[in-house]
Amino acid sequence: MVNILLLGGFGFIGSNIMKYIDLNFKNQYRVIVFDKFSTHPYSQKFECLYSSYDGDFSDSSILEKIFIENQIDLVIHSLSTTIPISSNNAIFDIQSNLIPTLNLLDLMVKYNSRKIIYISSGGAIYGNNNLCHKETEDVFPISSYGAIKLTIEKYLFLYSAQYEIKPLILRLSNPYGPFHYSMKQGIINVAMSKAIRKDKIEIYGNGNNKKDYIYINDCVDILFRLYNMNLWNEIYNIGSGELLSINQIISEIKKIKPDVDYSYIEKKKLDVQSFSLDLTKLLCKLSSYKFTPFKKGIIETYNWEKSKL
Amino acid sequence: MVNILLLGGFGFIGSNIMKYIDLNFKNQYRVIVFDKFSTHPYSQKFECLYSSYDGDFSDSSILEKIFIENQIDLVIHSLSTTIPISSNNAIFDIQSNLIPTLNLLDLMVKYNSRKIIYISSGGAIYGNNNLCHKETEDVFPISSYGAIKLTIEKYLFLYSAQYEIKPLILRLSNPYGPFHYSMKQGIINVAMSKAIRKDKIEIYGNGNNKKDYIYINDCVDILFRLYNMNLWNEIYNIGSGELLSINQIISEIKKIKPDVDYSYIEKKKLDVQSFSLDLTKLLCKLSSYKFTPFKKGIIETYNWEKSKL
Repeated sequence: MVNILLLGGFGFIGSNIMKYIDLNFKNQYRVIVFDKFSTHPYSQKFECLYSSYDGDFSDSSILEKIFIENQIDLVIHSLSTTIPISSNNAIFDIQSNLIPTLNLLDLMVKYNSRKIIYISSGGAIYGNNNLCHKETEDVFPISSYGAIKLTIEKYLFLYSAQYEIKPLILRLSNPYGPFHYSMKQGIINVAMSKAIRKDKIEIYGNGNNKKDYIYINDCVDILFRLYNMNLWNEIYNIGSGELLSINQIISEIKKIKPDVDYSYIEKKKLDVQSFSLDLTKLLCKLSSYKFTPFKKGIIETYNWEKSKL
Repeated sequence: MVNILLLGGFGFIGSNIMKYIDLNFKNQYRVIVFDKFSTHPYSQKFECLYSSYDGDFSDSSILEKIFIENQIDLVIHSLSTTIPISSNNAIFDIQSNLIPTLNLLDLMVKYNSRKIIYISSGGAIYGNNNLCHKETEDVFPISSYGAIKLTIEKYLFLYSAQYEIKPLILRLSNPYGPFHYSMKQGIINVAMSKAIRKDKIEIYGNGNNKKDYIYINDCVDILFRLYNMNLWNEIYNIGSGELLSINQIISEIKKIKPDVDYSYIEKKKLDVQSFSLDLTKLLCKLSSYKFTPFKKGIIETYNWEKSKL
């Protein structure tokens, strides 16, 4: 059995990882979750869940307890205490995300656990321009959330050079789908949730800017495919390549909920406007990958958001 | 008068800045120093020194006092609490360099002071390979010192996007010359000091790796030339383009101190091995710049190191 320490295991990405393991790798992987919650907020049960520890990420004694009590073969770090729009407080971001991650890396070295998959953010790391972004470009994040994600990436490579930590960094575009429950980020889920609850959807700007969106299960599937190829010390952009505007998303939601209500408001200064990822590196490893069509993903998202009521 | 807040004003770079202002801009610039020392360690007097504040960089109340008591037109940030070889403690680096710099930027926004020249490090930011490094490349520092300098650079651009802070970032190669007093970094000064005191010089590796060294007064001269061209939101590599090995440096020192004693020891894992900077961007602004020849710089360095005895 491979023991996976999953940081943020009861969050959006973490829950999808457990669901995916239950479906595909139940007899190969077991999961030890660290999260601020002691259970999934919507009480989902996952068979691969071996044990869970709850606490504050900045309390390294709990993290150390995990490494003492378990042999960890792989760390998947999908925990963040902040989201792009909340991170005007850079120092909170540093204290609650960067420093705890460095403590985690020190524990990995101390307990001889080397492999870590870090969930980074293409949307937040690449700056505010319309280019199709490549992993090798020099980047200028416009939010502290993005700057800290980038700094963590740099420290992962530094620990690789100094202590033979093996990082695999995934820069996700904008994932959507089941197990999402934030109402503050993730436009597709938030819009669908509002449509179901007959709340008005507020669209920043004219709704024509296009971004890359990816169905969350595709992200998780790609994560395990890359993991099984043993690709370490690498950064991969993870997106679908399908660019959608908010207006296109609303028109898809309309097909499911015809009475959706929305209005346009002034755009936020810090939001990345239009955004796409260069997926050459990813598709070089996973050529002819079959991404979930948006029309299918949006129905799964509808089913999930409805189940939360 | 232009009021300059000089962080680390009594250090190696800061002292050279004041000396340069005394010689060239005495009636244009006056300097407010913030440093952990209350005076220059070797009791140098500078005429441009208007006032000085001493304290811990992480105590932001002293920094705020400076902004309350003075209209600051330009910040020059040449303060670091760590050096490359000391920075195995990433968290100390974050607490004592990164967070205080973010506090400084917040104070600049609050007190409407926008221009900042940040002394970064080419040697520490670019990773461990033999390329000729360009400002636009994606970089992977191999020391925490370098990672934090890079993170500060990223936040400077973030504050530029968010709050109209105007940063000018200078990535220095390896400066040497007068007002240097650390015995832990700066191989040319340290070797010269040891030669004068008849201490044995320890050379890591075979002494053949070549690096870019620049006479400190050239750095300062270039800093003010770029400042006067109003070049903001930019990064410049600052080097001489003259690559020297430790063996070549020792042989120049031998001409001044023929009895210099040295030996070769095992190289350090973290040290950047060979290293040069692409100076195209700099020389595009300062074509046909006359760098101080090494033979002249080394004599000035000898005079300085001798004066410290």
